[in-house]
Amino acid sequence: MCSHEEHIQEEQELIKLRHSAAHLLAAAVKDLYPDAKPTIGPATDDGFYYDFDFGDKSISDTDLVAIEKKMKFLVKGWGGFERQEVSQEEALEKYKDNEYKIELIEGIVKEGETISLYKSGNFVDLCRGGHVEKPAAKLKFFKLLSLAGAYWRGSEENKMLTRIYGTAFFSNENLLAFIKMKEEAKERDHRKLGKELGLFVFTDSVGKGLPLWTAKGATIRRELERFVTDEEIRRGYQHVLTPDIANLDLYKKSGHYPYYKDSMYAPIKIEEEEYMLRPMTCPHHFELYNAHPHSYKELPMRIAELAKLYRFERSGELSGLIRVRSFCLADSHIVCTKDQAKEEINEVLNLIEFMGETFGLKPGIDLSYRLSLGDRADEKKYFKDDASWDYAEKVLREVLVERDAKYVEEPQEAAFYGPKIDVQMKNVNGKEDTAFTVQYDFVMPQRFDMKYVNELGEHEQPIVIHRSSIGAIERTLAFIIEKFAGKFPVWLAPVQVKVLPISEKFEAYAQEVAAKMRLENIRVEVDSRSERLQAKIREAQMEKVPYMLVVGEQEMIDSTVAVRRRDSREQDVQTVDNFVDQVIDEIKTRKI
Amino acid sequence: MCSHEEHIQEEQELIKLRHSAAHLLAAAVKDLYPDAKPTIGPATDDGFYYDFDFGDKSISDTDLVAIEKKMKFLVKGWGGFERQEVSQEEALEKYKDNEYKIELIEGIVKEGETISLYKSGNFVDLCRGGHVEKPAAKLKFFKLLSLAGAYWRGSEENKMLTRIYGTAFFSNENLLAFIKMKEEAKERDHRKLGKELGLFVFTDSVGKGLPLWTAKGATIRRELERFVTDEEIRRGYQHVLTPDIANLDLYKKSGHYPYYKDSMYAPIKIEEEEYMLRPMTCPHHFELYNAHPHSYKELPMRIAELAKLYRFERSGELSGLIRVRSFCLADSHIVCTKDQAKEEINEVLNLIEFMGETFGLKPGIDLSYRLSLGDRADEKKYFKDDASWDYAEKVLREVLVERDAKYVEEPQEAAFYGPKIDVQMKNVNGKEDTAFTVQYDFVMPQRFDMKYVNELGEHEQPIVIHRSSIGAIERTLAFIIEKFAGKFPVWLAPVQVKVLPISEKFEAYAQEVAAKMRLENIRVEVDSRSERLQAKIREAQMEKVPYMLVVGEQEMIDSTVAVRRRDSREQDVQTVDNFVDQVIDEIKTRKI
Repeated sequence: MCSHEEHIQEEQELIKLRHSAAHLLAAAVKDLYPDAKPTIGPATDDGFYYDFDFGDKSISDTDLVAIEKKMKFLVKGWGGFERQEVSQEEALEKYKDNEYKIELIEGIVKEGETISLYKSGNFVDLCRGGHVEKPAAKLKFFKLLSLAGAYWRGSEENKMLTRIYGTAFFSNENLLAFIKMKEEAKERDHRKLGKELGLFVFTDSVGKGLPLWTAKGATIRRELERFVTDEEIRRGYQHVLTPDIANLDLYKKSGHYPYYKDSMYAPIKIEEEEYMLRPMTCPHHFELYNAHPHSYKELPMRIAELAKLYRFERSGELSGLIRVRSFCLADSHIVCTKDQAKEEINEVLNLIEFMGETFGLKPGIDLSYRLSLGDRADEKKYFKDDASWDYAEKVLREVLVERDAKYVEEPQEAAFYGPKIDVQMKNVNGKEDTAFTVQYDFVMPQRFDMKYVNELGEHEQPIVIHRSSIGAIERTLAFIIEKFAGKFPVWLAPVQVKVLPISEKFEAYAQEVAAKMRLENIRVEVDSRSERLQAKIREAQMEKVPYMLVVGEQEMIDSTVAVRRRDSREQDVQTVDNFVDQVIDEIKTRKI
Repeated sequence: MCSHEEHIQEEQELIKLRHSAAHLLAAAVKDLYPDAKPTIGPATDDGFYYDFDFGDKSISDTDLVAIEKKMKFLVKGWGGFERQEVSQEEALEKYKDNEYKIELIEGIVKEGETISLYKSGNFVDLCRGGHVEKPAAKLKFFKLLSLAGAYWRGSEENKMLTRIYGTAFFSNENLLAFIKMKEEAKERDHRKLGKELGLFVFTDSVGKGLPLWTAKGATIRRELERFVTDEEIRRGYQHVLTPDIANLDLYKKSGHYPYYKDSMYAPIKIEEEEYMLRPMTCPHHFELYNAHPHSYKELPMRIAELAKLYRFERSGELSGLIRVRSFCLADSHIVCTKDQAKEEINEVLNLIEFMGETFGLKPGIDLSYRLSLGDRADEKKYFKDDASWDYAEKVLREVLVERDAKYVEEPQEAAFYGPKIDVQMKNVNGKEDTAFTVQYDFVMPQRFDMKYVNELGEHEQPIVIHRSSIGAIERTLAFIIEKFAGKFPVWLAPVQVKVLPISEKFEAYAQEVAAKMRLENIRVEVDSRSERLQAKIREAQMEKVPYMLVVGEQEMIDSTVAVRRRDSREQDVQTVDNFVDQVIDEIKTRKI
């Protein structure tokens, strides 16, 4: 058995364990709250949950302690899970007071399946099965984590139930490691750090999902945006600027409107026309391309933009900078010939990996790929053009294979207009997610009647590669905040250096040192408050300023500074010039 | 009589001359097109026009030549303007076939005024008077300029008439100077140059008044925006980023909504709320200010943003980059104490003049001020708070007087919430216009309940200075394009240097020279086409590239380049390093 199969089996055992833990949770709740109605309780990626209707009763985090204690007590009497098949009538009789289970039973009957109950200890639950054997022995390392509201069957029209989250592992070591990771992730949560470091705010009057960036947050963003823009230009991209609103007709022309309608905001009527907040940049860039005729000599034409986009998100699903109602995508559309596609996509992946490495993401470890393919038979989901699909998929696969990239294939995940490479990144929770995509498109050039003149003077149709380099700026910043736990690399830090005079006597020298650094565009502040040095250091550490420069008598005489790093208690004395050179170098090389 | 009064009298004489010319134009048109119906024909700032209903007939630019010729002929017989007062019946009888004049007559009667006709030569026109004496002698230097459509009485619901524009002067010298300036302005028109240089385009699908910036145009814009941002930060501004849309409630809270409703686009419904494309930044910045408590030590707090704004413009009034539907304002709101206002406003004017001088605008010559004051008696138009008005107006006037600035006072031009300084700039047509404003606001801080904690630990209300530094980026770019006739200063030029190898043999050396410059972030291109050198030079000149570097055998051997400036036929040979240093210096100092 190879290690991959071992891993899958382990995963399946863990799911069984966690599903068993959900039973145990329901048993404990029924014991403590006899009127509570259990509904469903599945295992999840990293634990399990169970949804209850507690009636008029509301429970809090402190109640979780008692429930967990009860679980520990009950599990001792759980020798195993005993399956019992029952008739519809028996099942309905048993759950005559629980309308949720009745709904579930009716569903099972409708699908022609057998109704089964599982008994462990004195607790019986409606269940399809999939439990761990010998729960008393195996189910020892679990923890209840949190409470949340959840609509019955996920629909806002149904009643709001109480969801209890928990997790379980086969070893205490794994459980503790998980709890530690969760706690760290909580400490690193960009919403928490964003507030503590004063990077962005949300206000009710401005509205949901619309962050306002303070000067500090905007500084990080500006540095990041300039870096992305300049690096792309260095790599031959042409940065353009197109409007954030456009006539509805444009999205009808592109064919996006029917597909994307639900993600778009309502039209704005201007005189007799309807205008939309743009949900994507593609048609804007195609219009720009089509505004002038082009020769093959101009291809590949890499049209790029830091583009503000607007996509509808339900207010309930908004979350910090991760799910917002307007975001800025580092977007590009590379117009090229079919023959140029492979080289271009390879260069795109080079750029993406360069960007990832700038923030410490290692290709193959923190960053991998998913090749999303189309299904020739599904003509509804995928544009019908078998030859183009074959060619495009071959190109993408070859690029990945030849660069020896870590990737998996997904047969049914392509875009309507062509296959794509999904860029998968790990966040601080260790969870892998699609950050953004690189898409091969042979449909839009037809729809927009895009052309170039080839070597023979004939009109030909180019293909288009849709790509990002770093994804949405907001999500990337959330990622960066969490990755560095707010301790930004020097080049991104809103305040890079703080000069701390040990008393008023050295204020003038502190200002002199700061002025020297400002000339070099270093973001520097002087803490001139009449506070003790320790208080100044503590404040600078809270703000996670990379460098503190303590200055007193000796430093003033020697033209030096005592340098203290944000994570260290050590101080080393350097000449001002030395220190400045070192900071400039760190900024220039974007040292992490 | 002081020179100012002399100037006013001259202006009035010119108006009379031009109004007389309008009569003459109508006489010539009636002579050539007996069925044409004259409507109105006033003098304007720089000439005159007359609107005609030509019925089914359409006239073109070539017809203007014949009309002008007829004017020259007729005027010889015009000894003077003879006034005749007539009854309503007589007037109506005379104009029984001209519904426009009938409408005018009815208007005169309604206002209880006398109906007067003026006769010169054989031509009689309904007119209130104001002509030059002895037209045959005085009205000699005039010219018809152009044709345009114009709705009767400016309303789209009325018939479209034909407007003929012309101008007239007392001397041939002045007329010729005016025509020359007009022609030059036409050559410099940013819409024309924007197209020729490929800086921006408009497309029907994207929509009216929404420019798409090409890579070249976006480069100029990026340089300008970074310059403004960095310079403001250097001067202590805090650059923030706030959303382009916000809940309608925000603009109700600020009190802008009822006043600005007609300039705003329709609300966008999101779930149960209404969101607006923002027409201004003020409430966004006030929300950000209010998100945290502030101490007097933090004031003045200069909150700045390059903010995209959306204001409604009728499609008929859109014009290039000057009147667009979305624009980006270099905006700021300085929150400070009353005592700090004077110093802050002075610093704002320093910044504005610095920005102006960067583009060659001299304070007192190309850039002046207008102090717009409120009327204490007009409580409807101006917020009632006499003491605050007195203080604010005193502060603004003192700043202008103490810095010895060129300014005029306008008693009724203040904003609702306080007095302001309008920044007046001259465009290429020599016309002075308000580019943007600096406003003193004591009302919004009340409305948003803005506070700071003073030295005594008490809450106090700050005042706010609304200001721009350079105005709207789009308008500024239109101005810059016209001012430099597309020959941008090196730091703004989309392509700064073009290397022209005299044959393929020197292509490698040309690329080497270019690579050296790219390392220094100089925007450089190599013209590798197999064209003759003259063709390459011509092309680079058409693109208005500041520097052409011709390279051949000798240059390759000597590691030099033959430098040719965009406006010169001279070439001087320099070492590559020398040239690079010089260009870097020009960019750094933003040489014009």
